[in-house]
Amino acid sequence: MGRQKECLEKLSRFFQIRNLLLRQALAECLGTLILVMFGCGAVAQRVLSGGSHGLFLTVNFAFGFAAMLGILVCGQISGGHLNPAVTFALCLLGRERWRKFPMYFLFQTIGAFFGAAIIFGMYYDALWDHPGSFNVTGPRATAGIFATYPAKHLTLVNGFFDQIIGTAALIVCILAIVDPYNNPIPQGLEAFTVGFVVLVIGLSMGFNSGYAVNPARDLGPRLFTAMAGWGSAVFTARDCWFLIPIFVPFLGATLGVIIYQLMVGFHTEGEARDKKKQSGQENVQLTNVASKDNSKEASKEIY
Amino acid sequence: MGRQKECLEKLSRFFQIRNLLLRQALAECLGTLILVMFGCGAVAQRVLSGGSHGLFLTVNFAFGFAAMLGILVCGQISGGHLNPAVTFALCLLGRERWRKFPMYFLFQTIGAFFGAAIIFGMYYDALWDHPGSFNVTGPRATAGIFATYPAKHLTLVNGFFDQIIGTAALIVCILAIVDPYNNPIPQGLEAFTVGFVVLVIGLSMGFNSGYAVNPARDLGPRLFTAMAGWGSAVFTARDCWFLIPIFVPFLGATLGVIIYQLMVGFHTEGEARDKKKQSGQENVQLTNVASKDNSKEASKEIY
Amino acid sequence: MGRQKECLEKLSRFFQIRNLLLRQALAECLGTLILVMFGCGAVAQRVLSGGSHGLFLTVNFAFGFAAMLGILVCGQISGGHLNPAVTFALCLLGRERWRKFPMYFLFQTIGAFFGAAIIFGMYYDALWDHPGSFNVTGPRATAGIFATYPAKHLTLVNGFFDQIIGTAALIVCILAIVDPYNNPIPQGLEAFTVGFVVLVIGLSMGFNSGYAVNPARDLGPRLFTAMAGWGSAVFTARDCWFLIPIFVPFLGATLGVIIYQLMVGFHTEGEARDKKKQSGQENVQLTNVASKDNSKEASKEIY
Amino acid sequence: MGRQKECLEKLSRFFQIRNLLLRQALAECLGTLILVMFGCGAVAQRVLSGGSHGLFLTVNFAFGFAAMLGILVCGQISGGHLNPAVTFALCLLGRERWRKFPMYFLFQTIGAFFGAAIIFGMYYDALWDHPGSFNVTGPRATAGIFATYPAKHLTLVNGFFDQIIGTAALIVCILAIVDPYNNPIPQGLEAFTVGFVVLVIGLSMGFNSGYAVNPARDLGPRLFTAMAGWGSAVFTARDCWFLIPIFVPFLGATLGVIIYQLMVGFHTEGEARDKKKQSGQENVQLTNVASKDNSKEASKEIY
Repeated sequence: MGRQKECLEKLSRFFQIRNLLLRQALAECLGTLILVMFGCGAVAQRVLSGGSHGLFLTVNFAFGFAAMLGILVCGQISGGHLNPAVTFALCLLGRERWRKFPMYFLFQTIGAFFGAAIIFGMYYDALWDHPGSFNVTGPRATAGIFATYPAKHLTLVNGFFDQIIGTAALIVCILAIVDPYNNPIPQGLEAFTVGFVVLVIGLSMGFNSGYAVNPARDLGPRLFTAMAGWGSAVFTARDCWFLIPIFVPFLGATLGVIIYQLMVGFHTEGEARDKKKQSGQENVQLTNVASKDNSKEASKEIY
Repeated sequence: MGRQKECLEKLSRFFQIRNLLLRQALAECLGTLILVMFGCGAVAQRVLSGGSHGLFLTVNFAFGFAAMLGILVCGQISGGHLNPAVTFALCLLGRERWRKFPMYFLFQTIGAFFGAAIIFGMYYDALWDHPGSFNVTGPRATAGIFATYPAKHLTLVNGFFDQIIGTAALIVCILAIVDPYNNPIPQGLEAFTVGFVVLVIGLSMGFNSGYAVNPARDLGPRLFTAMAGWGSAVFTARDCWFLIPIFVPFLGATLGVIIYQLMVGFHTEGEARDKKKQSGQENVQLTNVASKDNSKEASKEIY
Repeated sequence: MGRQKECLEKLSRFFQIRNLLLRQALAECLGTLILVMFGCGAVAQRVLSGGSHGLFLTVNFAFGFAAMLGILVCGQISGGHLNPAVTFALCLLGRERWRKFPMYFLFQTIGAFFGAAIIFGMYYDALWDHPGSFNVTGPRATAGIFATYPAKHLTLVNGFFDQIIGTAALIVCILAIVDPYNNPIPQGLEAFTVGFVVLVIGLSMGFNSGYAVNPARDLGPRLFTAMAGWGSAVFTARDCWFLIPIFVPFLGATLGVIIYQLMVGFHTEGEARDKKKQSGQENVQLTNVASKDNSKEASKEIY
Repeated sequence: MGRQKECLEKLSRFFQIRNLLLRQALAECLGTLILVMFGCGAVAQRVLSGGSHGLFLTVNFAFGFAAMLGILVCGQISGGHLNPAVTFALCLLGRERWRKFPMYFLFQTIGAFFGAAIIFGMYYDALWDHPGSFNVTGPRATAGIFATYPAKHLTLVNGFFDQIIGTAALIVCILAIVDPYNNPIPQGLEAFTVGFVVLVIGLSMGFNSGYAVNPARDLGPRLFTAMAGWGSAVFTARDCWFLIPIFVPFLGATLGVIIYQLMVGFHTEGEARDKKKQSGQENVQLTNVASKDNSKEASKEIY
């Protein structure tokens, strides 16, 4: 066992990446890969089995728990955003540096791309066995396994609001969960709670267009399908629908930040600020409390 | 990043509300909005998709997790009642001041109103696409997406008991969860546990009339539907059914308080009181234990 | 508010019961009432709605979460057994006194009786609306809402083993969860975990006869149905099936205790004993560790 | 009660096994028995009830929660692997000794064998009542209750990748959960989280061949069915499919270890190593921190 440990340590030294941002981006990549692999896998299972091995409910569960596991895998290293809209919201609030945003976006999209590729490989036989294997639209379309497409009834305008509302709801809940001044859950349960947020968004906002609410989760698999045989129709279908889940979630994230801050965030922040000032004026022995507040804030910022 | 932080701080100072009750009411408003948005969204998804994207089970899950998230968003600030019947029960027990009650009721109803409005906007196209878009009764009615209506078999008398039993069950479980002397769960998990309570009420008491058990959750969306196109029929339908989910939950809450206190609450309280007295007479070094008891009680009262 | 507090305190003093065993029995009664109310409510919802508002899965969820909530309500006071077979197993292991057993059995049965009565009241209209309202057997039987009846394929011999296996599985899992020397979960999560045990037993052992695995849960509602209109057929149906879920779970509990102790329990206990002895001989400063062990054991015994 | 305690202690002394490896193997045996009993029980319930008492979703839930309970039962003693592929991965990383591997494999398979036997006994009548009771293939086959068989569309090559991907996904998530340097969840929740991993694998990777991803879970029940009446066809069916879930998961485990270590593991390990070195050079009072790091690492290794 001595030799094995030595060998493992050598490998560890050889492959260790010391650049923090790259390490974080790699972790985000793996996390998003897990999110998309399990999530799209559940859609594939539902579509390809014709409903015998899946319901819309199982897809909701899969995306929820996939988000939970993706965050668990990378949360300690990169914060576990898995979603450029989340990164964007945290940048807006000054909790993440803006230069992280393009890097995270890129690696999240790469992770989503490979997550879709894994599911394509896994269900390759089932896909060929399915009538209408590589259709983008129509009742037997399979492109919807990977990227999202709007339901028949949806106009572009309503789709626009669909993505805004969905992302804003996601961001409000996530901000509440990670708010350093409104500390609602025991440390370490953030990932589980975010998983429930994703689950409930699927349960109640999934009928219009499959609740992308995540530019990377939609763009990566869409690129993959374009290359894997569905062709450019994945971009042109339904009046270039693909632009909506790429750009609109950022608007939704901004709206979510505004709503949460106006209704909850600014007041709890302000209260914490007031308390600190008071304790500074009174010069009492509350400095340790204040510093504990700071450290909590700091640790949350890392998240 | 320095300028961004500065700007954020300025905004925070500008929008900060210092009145505690108003801040709490705003938080309740957001929490109830989240409850109704996700909950009614799931009903909408089930009704409008004709069952392909939802079951009654998914509605139960959605209301359960929506309650959980609503409590997480506002619990630290306002206690996370989301329900005037819960506020009423806590006032009855002297754990909240009575003057909170009308304020909370108002803002919870406002939150529920806007939660319904968001879902209306989100599923606007789907609603118009649905045959019988704005029917209040009949097999293709859509008013039930927002407010609750009794099933065909239900008489008013049975509906009365339905709401009493449902609310009493809710209150008994919530009182057990937040009882300062019967501390069954780790701190921070209250929201999750209340979510399971709401889920299980839906699983077993939802068939009669859709388990409103919450005057705000029912009244807010009903007002919205009256204004949004369903008309006054939402109030007159089924012999003015709407009065039952508004008034009866308070009776149910009272009953729940009585049952819990008689069977569990009074005895655990009494035991704690007896212990304190003893420790007072013996004058031993148990004061710190007693004070810990007090502080726990206090912290629970805030909840 | 001062007067309200005073009044509440007076009430509390008036109704306080000081006899520990009676208080515990009352708590068990309320816990079992909650278990049966939510559990049988879910069966009623499934049967009376003809499947539109419930599946077998929702019944499993309801019983699982109902067990969780029942334990939360009474766990700190009485241990949260909710099941005479669990009380029996803990008595066998010397963790509860034998004189608790008949008292708990009685009050658990009373709680189950009233839980069934509440559901009967709640779904009274729906029951009369259902074709074959008060049938004990046949395809439209409703007696199965309250007590358990074997499926058509089941012989008495297989039913006997069904109840033995189900109860043994339940007891093995519960013993692992509350084993003071094999401390697998954070304190305060026992109720949640036992809820999952009940859920999974329903998911995999519910087809034969509806997984009573609990004499009180079956006997109480059966007595109620006999009185409420289904008549003596509830006892005579299927060759006096009702005797099996009353007596066999105790055999299953015994088997579960034996299996757990032989495969896990005796060894972990023995290890703890060996460690204590060692630390005693060495006379080192490990006394605090040992006492911590003791206290943990003690606190678990209470559970 | 004194005599009972004495008697229990005597029994405990008599049956206590002092050999650590044997005790661990026994615990693994019981844990895997629980996994297979509940998991295959749910498949049996679904198949034999013709879908009325089970869906593919309930099978997924059952396997997830069964894994959770199996780990809870034996986790403190043996680590709760329940799966030779998990043992293999931990050996590869030097966290378990290689000599444990054959012992665990053997006892896990024995546990799975008896888990299948229990379900066979429990559903004996239902099995005989089912048309095509002992068929291995065909639309009414029942062999799939116990071991896994590929769906019609699946070729051996795709089945090979199916098992590789499934096991790699399982191992990546488990490694993240138990990584001593990437400590994402509160201690004591590992079992719950692994349960969710198994659940989500079933939700998204179960359509091809029933997600064995566990040589013991597949081999034990298959041996049982061969002996219990299905005959040698369980081995010869579909071009000796049975070899794939026995051997391929080890490849998948290796792949999972490589992916996790390259993308996350090596970097977090390296960081911890770098920090220790620094603190050693600076000779500051951080030794206690370092030792805490070590102890955490040690405790995780035990897991």
